[in-house]
Amino acid sequence: MEVKLLKSHKTFEGKTQFWEHDSTSTKTKMKFSTFIPEGLVKGCVIWLSGLTCTDENFITKAGAQKYLAEHQLMVICPDTSPRGLQLPGEHESYDFGSGASFYVDAKTPGYADHYRMFTYISEELFDLIQTQFQVPKNKISIMGHSMGGHGALVIGLRENKKFQSISAFAPIVNPTQCPWGEKAFTGYLGTDKSTWSQYDATELVRSGARHENSILVDQGLADEFYEKGQLLTPQLEKACLEVGQSIEMKYRGDYDHSYYFIATFIEKHIKHHAKFLT
Amino acid sequence: MEVKLLKSHKTFEGKTQFWEHDSTSTKTKMKFSTFIPEGLVKGCVIWLSGLTCTDENFITKAGAQKYLAEHQLMVICPDTSPRGLQLPGEHESYDFGSGASFYVDAKTPGYADHYRMFTYISEELFDLIQTQFQVPKNKISIMGHSMGGHGALVIGLRENKKFQSISAFAPIVNPTQCPWGEKAFTGYLGTDKSTWSQYDATELVRSGARHENSILVDQGLADEFYEKGQLLTPQLEKACLEVGQSIEMKYRGDYDHSYYFIATFIEKHIKHHAKFLT
Repeated sequence: MEVKLLKSHKTFEGKTQFWEHDSTSTKTKMKFSTFIPEGLVKGCVIWLSGLTCTDENFITKAGAQKYLAEHQLMVICPDTSPRGLQLPGEHESYDFGSGASFYVDAKTPGYADHYRMFTYISEELFDLIQTQFQVPKNKISIMGHSMGGHGALVIGLRENKKFQSISAFAPIVNPTQCPWGEKAFTGYLGTDKSTWSQYDATELVRSGARHENSILVDQGLADEFYEKGQLLTPQLEKACLEVGQSIEMKYRGDYDHSYYFIATFIEKHIKHHAKFLT
Repeated sequence: MEVKLLKSHKTFEGKTQFWEHDSTSTKTKMKFSTFIPEGLVKGCVIWLSGLTCTDENFITKAGAQKYLAEHQLMVICPDTSPRGLQLPGEHESYDFGSGASFYVDAKTPGYADHYRMFTYISEELFDLIQTQFQVPKNKISIMGHSMGGHGALVIGLRENKKFQSISAFAPIVNPTQCPWGEKAFTGYLGTDKSTWSQYDATELVRSGARHENSILVDQGLADEFYEKGQLLTPQLEKACLEVGQSIEMKYRGDYDHSYYFIATFIEKHIKHHAKFLT
């Protein structure tokens, strides 16, 4: 599998890079960005972005490179959906289709052939990190923001042997119970709600999914989507406490849903993953 | 004068904010962004951006807030030109007109009425920092990137009593001798080249302009515009050494012209200004 380097920028003595490859999971080209520190790379954190984002938002705005370089960790940031397709309804709204995959393996006509982002992240990208960047398979963790926080929680909990640690900023923790999730899961998984719970972090924890290491979550209290009931962050905390899953949930007064919030606390998240990877 | 707050995001315990006001200098609305740390503000650094940028690029991409908060400094980032006009040729190219003011007071028809960015920065914004944000007049410094590095050098050298310190990333140091500068100065100042040297940092130093504090400049050696002869950074270093103007010029191997380069070295620039402001 050829992985094509599109751009490279020296950053904090390492390299911020943009890549493209033909994905076997999505049967489309997929883009991703990376930061690779100078010298020995001790591990990799996958970053999953939120609605409307691409592979560029995190690597441009979060200010993570400094801390990744300090801990000798790389980050890999995939795009938030396949691109270049013309599926029914794919480009009509910001919260479904392009830029809004919700990191599921879709089952509905058309989408089932390409929107296989759960497999793309947990298998194809997981393997690519090892083959392309020589990171050992037991040195990979996962984090994300909003829809990507949902993705990190779901993938990290279901594939708990593959990912050493999980963290999230303002994640959608209970998508079967919020408007964003109901719309996306209906479109990708269909109306049979019995299949939805495998993509709902809170439901997964309630039905037995566990991670051996504490999950780190930051949630801003001035986050408009938190206020509107799209994120439901306390539901995950409640479920974890009920079943004994270790979780560190931090509510941050006055912080919103933006990358300014992420930039403020990204150092703490990278330290969290470094604890398990280095 | 009313200054209207458009957006506010808590960041590193302080606030990243976006503003708009009616400028008396440009006779248009002007936008700017700020980061204001929590608690006592000890000083302010003006950031001038480069070609095609707005008030958003630096505040979103440079990762400066962490270091500004540490040193209790605010930053203010004006837009790179007036907006909303329809002057001849104003929107036809990336290197002239909108997004490309070169921070001069224009003399050519049409532009002379609005493109008065030297006055806007050195008088109107300088005063606004004091009245709107209560920063003492002897606690203001200036920095910038590329076209904005040119602006910071020219404004800082000419108004050396107003600005306590100057720094620049990959500045256009000798615009009378490079294609970007020749095009812009012809359009804004006219063909009489005798008026151009007051907007050329290298010429200013050669003809006697001085700053009492050392000027800090970082220049990437893989910068495509450096390679193409648009920046001419060594010319400023040479002029400073010839006349005894203190300058700290750092050439950075493999770094390019991007915000990844700026993000890598912004901590050092903020420390430089903090030395003179706090």
